[in-house]
Amino acid sequence: MLSLALASFLFQQADPDVAGLTPNEIADAAPAGDWRAIDPDHLLVIGLADGDEVTIELNSDFAPVHVANIQAMAREGFWIPGASVYRVQDNYVVQWGHRDDAPELPATVEENPPAEYVRPVEGLSVRSFGMRDSYAAAVGFANGWPVALYADGTASLTHCYGTVGVGRDLSPDTGTGEELYAVIGHAPRHLDRNIAIVGRVIDGMEHFTSLTRGTETLGMYPEGEIAAGIVRVALASQMPPETRPAYGVLREDSTAFARYVSVRANRDDAFYDVPAGGVDICNVQVPVRRIAR
Amino acid sequence: MLSLALASFLFQQADPDVAGLTPNEIADAAPAGDWRAIDPDHLLVIGLADGDEVTIELNSDFAPVHVANIQAMAREGFWIPGASVYRVQDNYVVQWGHRDDAPELPATVEENPPAEYVRPVEGLSVRSFGMRDSYAAAVGFANGWPVALYADGTASLTHCYGTVGVGRDLSPDTGTGEELYAVIGHAPRHLDRNIAIVGRVIDGMEHFTSLTRGTETLGMYPEGEIAAGIVRVALASQMPPETRPAYGVLREDSTAFARYVSVRANRDDAFYDVPAGGVDICNVQVPVRRIAR
Repeated sequence: MLSLALASFLFQQADPDVAGLTPNEIADAAPAGDWRAIDPDHLLVIGLADGDEVTIELNSDFAPVHVANIQAMAREGFWIPGASVYRVQDNYVVQWGHRDDAPELPATVEENPPAEYVRPVEGLSVRSFGMRDSYAAAVGFANGWPVALYADGTASLTHCYGTVGVGRDLSPDTGTGEELYAVIGHAPRHLDRNIAIVGRVIDGMEHFTSLTRGTETLGMYPEGEIAAGIVRVALASQMPPETRPAYGVLREDSTAFARYVSVRANRDDAFYDVPAGGVDICNVQVPVRRIAR
Repeated sequence: MLSLALASFLFQQADPDVAGLTPNEIADAAPAGDWRAIDPDHLLVIGLADGDEVTIELNSDFAPVHVANIQAMAREGFWIPGASVYRVQDNYVVQWGHRDDAPELPATVEENPPAEYVRPVEGLSVRSFGMRDSYAAAVGFANGWPVALYADGTASLTHCYGTVGVGRDLSPDTGTGEELYAVIGHAPRHLDRNIAIVGRVIDGMEHFTSLTRGTETLGMYPEGEIAAGIVRVALASQMPPETRPAYGVLREDSTAFARYVSVRANRDDAFYDVPAGGVDICNVQVPVRRIAR
């Protein structure tokens, strides 16, 4: 079911109940029931050689074959040893995987996945909050993810800061998922509908973004050099329940989320003189929090 | 004079003369006459302690008092010694200046500048290319800078990746320019009209963006620690003509710029299957090139 909120919503002043609060203060105050727990099969932990960790939430609603590939590669230990971050292009992406000499793919991996760049809007429940967009007919949130809606009845996830997608060669290749990238700059929305989006970084993003930029074309590191070694790629479901990480995502059908978007569009805390009266979808980072066990 | 191009412009397919070209290929092919040389009084070079340099173009069209302050501080050596980058907040800003114990301001510095956050649209020549925006009534380019236009007849520069603004305390303080920040993440457009924008990073951005993020609130470094020392802040006009850097900015009234925007909105080079049909203003990085002397 497609449910678009009234277009006028966003351009009102913030709810008087939250006057003067920051977006983070609103999210922090959301009750426990407003948070969707992330399924441990959709939580991918990447361990870097220096001990830092980057945690990614996977999304099977748009690119299920690609995500199943990634889950299989994690379970089968496809990336370890040998994977690294080997591309860091400023204001664009970091990219990782086996740069050369990748081992054989696990037997369950689909080597030629379909072009899972869009899906039907049908079947998604989308809340738009009246946000204007520079690219698509409409944008909104579905199950905690930013989505774009097109005039032909299709929807895609959007390339925002932290979005994780599947590296590919020229079309019709769609990539297997063995090489992934994360956006580290301003949203490159022109990639929407041209590449498979499979997830987003939800923790440890700063370990990707602060890597030294590569000096070769497209931010590649010179042959034989890497930005960071990767020593672990594991789903939370592969870890013992008592030690696996757990995260919650603020549900977009909660009152707290509506207030959060409204205040992102109309900051009225002490620093601000003029509320913007609008916000672009990639400037509404969906609140995610680590859950203590 | 306000000249807005036809709204339909952007949503056409790219000019057949540039079919298959990338935006960078179009900019690289622009003839010498399409490039505006940056005035050496508006080129600010920041030297970091490790030898790296970050170069900023200043803009006096929106915040002339703040920019005059910065030029005076550079000429008088206000920042050296003692300045540093002391704040690095992921997906937001780096900030620099004298964190503590700033020396006395040069005599010509205005200590309480007016709130130069907007200016009248009157007097600006703006080309919009029909771009849609999530924040303002319209957006476009004026003298090579991204600008937002509001229903009340005012215009502001926009907070995009690399935008440089003036750190300030709560209003009515507007900052003197002695503490500056640069945007290192997705465009925080909600800051538009709330802070004085004075420039943009045009070279060496990666030396800011790859700094280790600060661990304290707002990305601050702990007391007594810094992200990077600053050993030089100088206008190009303070350097001998034979060694000063020189840059050109692609003029927005050139054919090359119109083609560049059109192709940013409608990528049709080999990687792309579906042209976006639109682009947001912060995803149109105005081409800047270093000029050999």
